[in-house]
Amino acid sequence: LARIALDAMGGDHAPTATIAGALLALQELAPEHVIQLVGRAEIVRAELDAQLAASPADVRAQAHRLSLVDAAEVIEMTDKPSVAIRGKPHSSMAVGLRLQVAGESEAFVSAGNTGAQMAASTFILRLHDGLTRPAIGTLIPSARIPVVMLDAGANVDCSAAELVQFARLGAVYAEDVLGRPNPSIALLSVGEEPEKGNAAVKDAHKELAASAGLNFIGNVEGRDVPMGACDRGPVDVVVCDGFVGNVLLKFYESVPKLIFGLLAKSGVSREQLAGALQGLDYAAHGGAPLLGVKGVSIICHGKSSPEAIKNGILVGLRASQSRMSDHIGQRLASTVEGTPA
Amino acid sequence: LARIALDAMGGDHAPTATIAGALLALQELAPEHVIQLVGRAEIVRAELDAQLAASPADVRAQAHRLSLVDAAEVIEMTDKPSVAIRGKPHSSMAVGLRLQVAGESEAFVSAGNTGAQMAASTFILRLHDGLTRPAIGTLIPSARIPVVMLDAGANVDCSAAELVQFARLGAVYAEDVLGRPNPSIALLSVGEEPEKGNAAVKDAHKELAASAGLNFIGNVEGRDVPMGACDRGPVDVVVCDGFVGNVLLKFYESVPKLIFGLLAKSGVSREQLAGALQGLDYAAHGGAPLLGVKGVSIICHGKSSPEAIKNGILVGLRASQSRMSDHIGQRLASTVEGTPA
Repeated sequence: LARIALDAMGGDHAPTATIAGALLALQELAPEHVIQLVGRAEIVRAELDAQLAASPADVRAQAHRLSLVDAAEVIEMTDKPSVAIRGKPHSSMAVGLRLQVAGESEAFVSAGNTGAQMAASTFILRLHDGLTRPAIGTLIPSARIPVVMLDAGANVDCSAAELVQFARLGAVYAEDVLGRPNPSIALLSVGEEPEKGNAAVKDAHKELAASAGLNFIGNVEGRDVPMGACDRGPVDVVVCDGFVGNVLLKFYESVPKLIFGLLAKSGVSREQLAGALQGLDYAAHGGAPLLGVKGVSIICHGKSSPEAIKNGILVGLRASQSRMSDHIGQRLASTVEGTPA
Repeated sequence: LARIALDAMGGDHAPTATIAGALLALQELAPEHVIQLVGRAEIVRAELDAQLAASPADVRAQAHRLSLVDAAEVIEMTDKPSVAIRGKPHSSMAVGLRLQVAGESEAFVSAGNTGAQMAASTFILRLHDGLTRPAIGTLIPSARIPVVMLDAGANVDCSAAELVQFARLGAVYAEDVLGRPNPSIALLSVGEEPEKGNAAVKDAHKELAASAGLNFIGNVEGRDVPMGACDRGPVDVVVCDGFVGNVLLKFYESVPKLIFGLLAKSGVSREQLAGALQGLDYAAHGGAPLLGVKGVSIICHGKSSPEAIKNGILVGLRASQSRMSDHIGQRLASTVEGTPA
């Protein structure tokens, strides 16, 4: 049994999209799992009632697996991260995350303010020993299968030691949530050779090459990311700092728009295109776990559709059931013990 | 009259592609311009004779506008940059660049070893006062018109002051070579707000916002690059460090491949696709000037086709005729004088 807390107030289209996403998720989740809708009770109740009234009987029959958790405050998309910790202690984020600390929930999913969710998750769930920062692990579509890229925006200035931490976090994520045993880990750089890269990347390469317990395959270049592979084989995890990760991810976001514009002139139908480009929508792949916190905190895109919210809930369940957070803690502990300082 | 020196030995497909590119360029250049083929005389002569023999009469009639400049050594793609300066003083790169210093040529174009070309250009042509590094300015296709991105790989670790230098270099490039008066300059970051970014980017934003003579429009995000615009209007120049620039550019390179794979399944014909995606091939847009050196040094992609080499030669001509290098020197001098230190 897993109890997944959903930030009903989070995201550009909340609470409509969040509650619709919860209803979609109930249809896919095994019957023992439940969803906790966290937010202003009167607003959530009204929206839920309206959506249930318009739903078919089989959806209404699942409604008993939803519970409402009242949270008096709402974090706005424009609030500073610190607001999540000090300014609004009764926000849906803070309340939803505290459920895990109290042993009343297994995962938290939000499409709200990302900076606030990171701050609140770090503050409330805390970081595993051996980490200085959490990282956002995002799945990006590739010509092969989706690739885990991290950090996708949490940390804009990273040290070599932090890049190495990201590699360890990404390895556990790929193994536990994506079910890829012994995932291949690559470092994003400007050339394949170990001596290529900026200062942090060059040092991180040395550390990764020397560290045990990681299937480190060396540097990859920007061109390898959308292929999901380099000439040494498939790539499961791409490690980079949050500045590069954020730029690349947002660049990727607008590629379908660019292609649409280009192909529209060539007589390709919009329908053919839309179908083909759907696979490029990384937001649809579900939420991105905030890696490194002691617990499960899933970050969804602010523009998440009900389908994307549902996928975020499924990611939260997989993270919880695979005990990803525990595994991260164990791996980090064994690294600290096993490595001669 | 402009004399454009072409590194006949440079590039993966040299000298076949370089000489074919020179012949193509002659057809497009006004009749007063000439091309200097720099390389091992016997090899260049043999290849040129073979290509001329197979060419129609109107191409052969232009052959008098080609001159051969002998250079005994060749820089390999795997040579270290220092080889270009000390190891092979008689390379086609060194010889071709020295023609400018001697007043015998107006521009140098190469598809050879980029690191070597940067080192040789900096060493032989020297940098304008006020600069600590040169930058590669690459044109990348967008949904609007091509955008200048710099640095595209010359400098992996950049200070804020260097990012500001890149902004000035890019402004002159866009104005002189692309003919865009008062080009808009944007700084690539992880958010539009001035306080978003890594340490160097945040400091560069402050300096750019305070500096006169630049049409600085603030930060743009990764998604704005392929659009060639942000919500504040069109973007002509995108400033970033060479690590980010290189990753983004190589990522862009493999997007057509990704799209091809996705769309192939959707029943779109390869012909329709190929035509539409041709516009995404930034290598075809011609060479990228190495900005900041006192002279003209055009860097072409190692995989350049004859068409791309021809475009590189045309970029070299425009850079020479617009007196881009002089303008860069003047702008930098006025900045140094005009700014209270």
